[in-house]
Amino acid sequence: MDQRKTVLQFQPFQSAIDVAFWTELGHYKLDKLRLSEDAVPIHGHYSASCQTDVPSILQLERSSLEETQASPSSMGTCEVAGTLYNLNTLDRFKTLDRSAALQAEAERIWQTIVTGEAERHSRLLNRFLLLTFAELKLFKFYYWFAFPALKPAVPFTASPAQSLTAAYGPEAASQLAAACDSWRAPESGPQETSADPFWLLVRTASNGMEARPLTAWTQARAEGEVCLAMADPCNLAANPGWPLRNMLLLAAKRWRCQQLRVVCVRELRGKADPTVSIVLDVELPPLPEGWCEGDQSPPAAMGWEPNAKGKLGPRMADLGPTMDPRRLAESAVDLNLRLMRWRAAPSLGTDRLADVKCLLLGAGTLGCAVARTLLGWGVRNISFVDNSTVAFSNPVRQSLYEFEDCLGGGKPKATAAAEALQRIFPSVNAQGVSLSIPMPGHPISPVELEKVAADTARLEQLVAEHDVVFLLMDTRESRWLPTLLAAAGGKLAINAALGFDSFLVMRHGTSASVPDVEPHPTPGPATTTRLGCYFCNDVVAPLDSTVDRTLDQQCTVARPGLAGIAGALAVELMTATLQHPAGAAAPPPAADPLAGNVEALPLGAVPHMVRGQLGGFAQMCLTGQAFSQCTACSGTVVREYRARGWEFLLEALQDPKKLEDLTGLTELHSSAAAMCDDFDESDEDGEGGAAAGPDRDGQDEWMSL
Amino acid sequence: MDQRKTVLQFQPFQSAIDVAFWTELGHYKLDKLRLSEDAVPIHGHYSASCQTDVPSILQLERSSLEETQASPSSMGTCEVAGTLYNLNTLDRFKTLDRSAALQAEAERIWQTIVTGEAERHSRLLNRFLLLTFAELKLFKFYYWFAFPALKPAVPFTASPAQSLTAAYGPEAASQLAAACDSWRAPESGPQETSADPFWLLVRTASNGMEARPLTAWTQARAEGEVCLAMADPCNLAANPGWPLRNMLLLAAKRWRCQQLRVVCVRELRGKADPTVSIVLDVELPPLPEGWCEGDQSPPAAMGWEPNAKGKLGPRMADLGPTMDPRRLAESAVDLNLRLMRWRAAPSLGTDRLADVKCLLLGAGTLGCAVARTLLGWGVRNISFVDNSTVAFSNPVRQSLYEFEDCLGGGKPKATAAAEALQRIFPSVNAQGVSLSIPMPGHPISPVELEKVAADTARLEQLVAEHDVVFLLMDTRESRWLPTLLAAAGGKLAINAALGFDSFLVMRHGTSASVPDVEPHPTPGPATTTRLGCYFCNDVVAPLDSTVDRTLDQQCTVARPGLAGIAGALAVELMTATLQHPAGAAAPPPAADPLAGNVEALPLGAVPHMVRGQLGGFAQMCLTGQAFSQCTACSGTVVREYRARGWEFLLEALQDPKKLEDLTGLTELHSSAAAMCDDFDESDEDGEGGAAAGPDRDGQDEWMSL
Repeated sequence: MDQRKTVLQFQPFQSAIDVAFWTELGHYKLDKLRLSEDAVPIHGHYSASCQTDVPSILQLERSSLEETQASPSSMGTCEVAGTLYNLNTLDRFKTLDRSAALQAEAERIWQTIVTGEAERHSRLLNRFLLLTFAELKLFKFYYWFAFPALKPAVPFTASPAQSLTAAYGPEAASQLAAACDSWRAPESGPQETSADPFWLLVRTASNGMEARPLTAWTQARAEGEVCLAMADPCNLAANPGWPLRNMLLLAAKRWRCQQLRVVCVRELRGKADPTVSIVLDVELPPLPEGWCEGDQSPPAAMGWEPNAKGKLGPRMADLGPTMDPRRLAESAVDLNLRLMRWRAAPSLGTDRLADVKCLLLGAGTLGCAVARTLLGWGVRNISFVDNSTVAFSNPVRQSLYEFEDCLGGGKPKATAAAEALQRIFPSVNAQGVSLSIPMPGHPISPVELEKVAADTARLEQLVAEHDVVFLLMDTRESRWLPTLLAAAGGKLAINAALGFDSFLVMRHGTSASVPDVEPHPTPGPATTTRLGCYFCNDVVAPLDSTVDRTLDQQCTVARPGLAGIAGALAVELMTATLQHPAGAAAPPPAADPLAGNVEALPLGAVPHMVRGQLGGFAQMCLTGQAFSQCTACSGTVVREYRARGWEFLLEALQDPKKLEDLTGLTELHSSAAAMCDDFDESDEDGEGGAAAGPDRDGQDEWMSL
Repeated sequence: MDQRKTVLQFQPFQSAIDVAFWTELGHYKLDKLRLSEDAVPIHGHYSASCQTDVPSILQLERSSLEETQASPSSMGTCEVAGTLYNLNTLDRFKTLDRSAALQAEAERIWQTIVTGEAERHSRLLNRFLLLTFAELKLFKFYYWFAFPALKPAVPFTASPAQSLTAAYGPEAASQLAAACDSWRAPESGPQETSADPFWLLVRTASNGMEARPLTAWTQARAEGEVCLAMADPCNLAANPGWPLRNMLLLAAKRWRCQQLRVVCVRELRGKADPTVSIVLDVELPPLPEGWCEGDQSPPAAMGWEPNAKGKLGPRMADLGPTMDPRRLAESAVDLNLRLMRWRAAPSLGTDRLADVKCLLLGAGTLGCAVARTLLGWGVRNISFVDNSTVAFSNPVRQSLYEFEDCLGGGKPKATAAAEALQRIFPSVNAQGVSLSIPMPGHPISPVELEKVAADTARLEQLVAEHDVVFLLMDTRESRWLPTLLAAAGGKLAINAALGFDSFLVMRHGTSASVPDVEPHPTPGPATTTRLGCYFCNDVVAPLDSTVDRTLDQQCTVARPGLAGIAGALAVELMTATLQHPAGAAAPPPAADPLAGNVEALPLGAVPHMVRGQLGGFAQMCLTGQAFSQCTACSGTVVREYRARGWEFLLEALQDPKKLEDLTGLTELHSSAAAMCDDFDESDEDGEGGAAAGPDRDGQDEWMSL
């Protein structure tokens, strides 16, 4: 052996992390880890070096967090198992006891040496430790790798490296290289051992060299010349890569070997290259007697990766600048939603909300507030229906419009609202439809007939295309047709209406269960078990309330805070309903066996109606059953609509009294009037009956709250 | 007299309305008329014609709605009294009984003839009627004028008109013109009669012509030649202006005169011009005997002004396109506010709100919601303080930001929010200040000291410059300094804080009354009669809660509807407080003698705290008294701050325990700990006392709601 032995130095690993890994880690943190800081098994890989001037790289990629390690690995790729600690805060990241974490990894490696397991699976000699803190709000990832290497009591030394060719001569070197190749990529296909980075090379009877597993050491040593081969990630002419450190300790510990020839295999086009592969004759100082035996602590470990400045410190990957801003916005928006599931509402189904399609009828104060709250909940599909344009008084109360939208006569509200959503969140799927909702009792002139029919057909189509219909208009009667369409289509209808300082927010009972045929409804105010709709408290059909409205009745004369409150509550009512296992059929809290079960109902039980009063800062929940003679949602009306379609709608629009005839309300009125006659015969116009007087004051009836 | 007499035709008035009149009418409608359709006395004016090709114009201007008619009128100007009916709806405007309205005006004129009053004040012969419908949302004004003319039983006839010069010869004509001028604009200054459009011209003894009042008719007629003169708004060579009609009827009725020479005076540079003034010899058919006497109805009237197409119909003034869009937006925004006063809250003081200056500490979800609701209330002065930039997750929840604001690292929130307000409502006075609010317990390094001092000084200045301070931050301890500054400055502080699905909105009790010297505070949890602040429930000083916060604690993990609700309630709480006669010192509802008095409290009584829970859709109002040992608002702390300023603040910021020493809380803790020792001697670390354990979980204490 050469006398000029010097301390053997190993090229450390450098970590190389695919952006996809960070993305995946973000998801993993949000969806699986949440607040856990437990160790997560991950894996990376390295290859035998195949390029000059490229350091030893340990690579992590998207699949590194997947539980099933790719095995057998692709040719020439060595898998490395690792442990990830993702810390919850930067402070935790900074103050974690890193020595302890590293020592724990070293201990695992040491055990594989002591038990001999590493001889059977030499990949166990390589491990890595990864500490991370994911600053997901900013798409920044702080991280620190360690590649634990066990320190021998006295350093290994080696004579200067020679190339394989120089050491063996060209022919023998080629033969040796071929033996390595056939070991690592046998023609019979990858073997279990081929992902292991170390093997033996043994002189054969025919003076050739043959690869053998590490477990063959004792026998091969007895038979004759044997050396160690490694798939070497390093490409330096004088030094081996980092994995050799722990392997040499194994040789010293298990084999008690004091000299060892090591062939560091490097590749060219996937084959061992004898000209860059090197041969090292290593001197292994004998380990002290009893070193690290039994209860003793394992050897000290080292291996923290320096940062980009070459100093011992963490690195930071800032994905922000490299990401498509739209994608950045998308993940940022999802972030807050997923965070809710960490502590507050672990069973929250946020995906259900991203897919739901919401139709907003009305893009005024309520429509804007509802749309914004939907965005906050991650709802991606939002359609507006409105027939007006943005007026100068709108922007200060209708949160999707600006001064510019009012110029030149004002943009159509529906499209302006949709455009605003795109400006807020480019990934939203928003559309605006300028459309007048046909209203019962509003006279339809012959020239308008075609337009009303088209508007009705468009509205029917829109309701059919969406899952939830929000009724956010400013007149009572404009709510009739959408209420009927939602009832007939089994859609969830959420209704919000404002007074001066009071509001009503409610969900309509779902009519998905309305059978197409029903026995003759019992006359009289019988109720069903279904929850009511906006019209269920009425005993008159909706009429035109816009005729002769004064200015304050035409405008939104409401305390400005009201729309924000009612709009937000409407959306929260929707989300609570959708998160309920029974969905739109969710019973009211008093009748809900799941009420109070936080796991089943992450957003709580779902009231039927919420009424609020700003004057007293009061709010209460109410429940009302469906009215079997309701002009909007009763089985009678739904069936008539299903059977006769537009023909029926036109009749109802032109003469709302037809609805009263159909539902039996006319009869009810007659008997009510007759009753009044009995009591007060002088009241001849029949309007004395409380039930018979149409509510025509242009205010919603619940204003008397 | 000439034989070629033909039916005399009169040039009708044309209305000319200054834009300022419409603006004034808008204000009048909103502030005074509101829903009233009562007759409103107004006035217009016309002048003797001074230009060819200009029709007879009756002018209305800004002052036309003022009650005091300008009198005596400026030279050559004839005031005309009129009646305005401003209708509430277009429908009322269309369907009003116009004949009856016109006839009522005619009756008034007729009575002045019958009683002879019109002889004393001939201006009474001219009246006008104005029907309007002000579509204030669109800045459109529908209107229809009538200039009531009484119809004689048989039309008046006249020989062809001659110019004054032609009729009298140049010299006599000039003399006659001078007589008119000295009547209308006597050198002794305007007379009571000079605003009257008619007078007599009487031949004097010296063969000159002299002006006399109409009341001189009988005497003058007896004395000799007399003719009627009028300030004629018409410039036609053959016809007189409209005012002559009713005058001729007066002559026929009162004077029973059958022929009358009329001099229609027209002017040039303010003087009667004999060349364009004309002379008419009018034949007045005798009125039927007993015509319109006693109980009889007055003569039929006519005089509706045709529209621009020359047809009988209303006109419409569309001010929208002519107005500066910014001004349009301003009046539109005021519109909704003033409308509230029509029915809902007649005693609402909206001007108080326009002038109030609001400081919003925090421009996140709450800050945005608060600012938008303030805009809705017409608040014009809004300042934001925030130290962060717009992140990608913000726009969907923070309603003043858009995707664009997040690019390039994100705009500073405070300025981005202020810019957004300008885009929404250009007349707002909004500013953004990027500033970190110093927080107790957050360590201040020596290099930071200067910045913290500067930030504190800036915050002190901002609080001093504003009337209301909104506390809308996301940490507990950032509320301490603003709470103290508001307490020391006697400012109204409104506080809003969010949990996952609960919120707290409160007003701090005002400390304007904190005396500079107070007897030693009684130790122990004595309470004052003042309402509490956010810290009054605490027995520990605020500490750094941001150290080691996990991602969900750093982000706004709240149900998205929550900020909209809490932000709106915070502003409604502010407006209700400001509308209370006691302002910030308003007692809570239970202690408020005005509670329930709608006239005194248009927005209702003012709770101290509103707590809400989205899980149960519940909300309740609470009251809590100030804590005499509060670390933020107690007299002890306020006095210490007033006395020692920054020196004291720095101590408190660096070591919050100093606050506990100052307020006597330390002593309280010791006794609490001692008590615990008594009960559980094994608990030696003294943390067993419920009062002693600092609340460091990063959640606001009210989360346990």
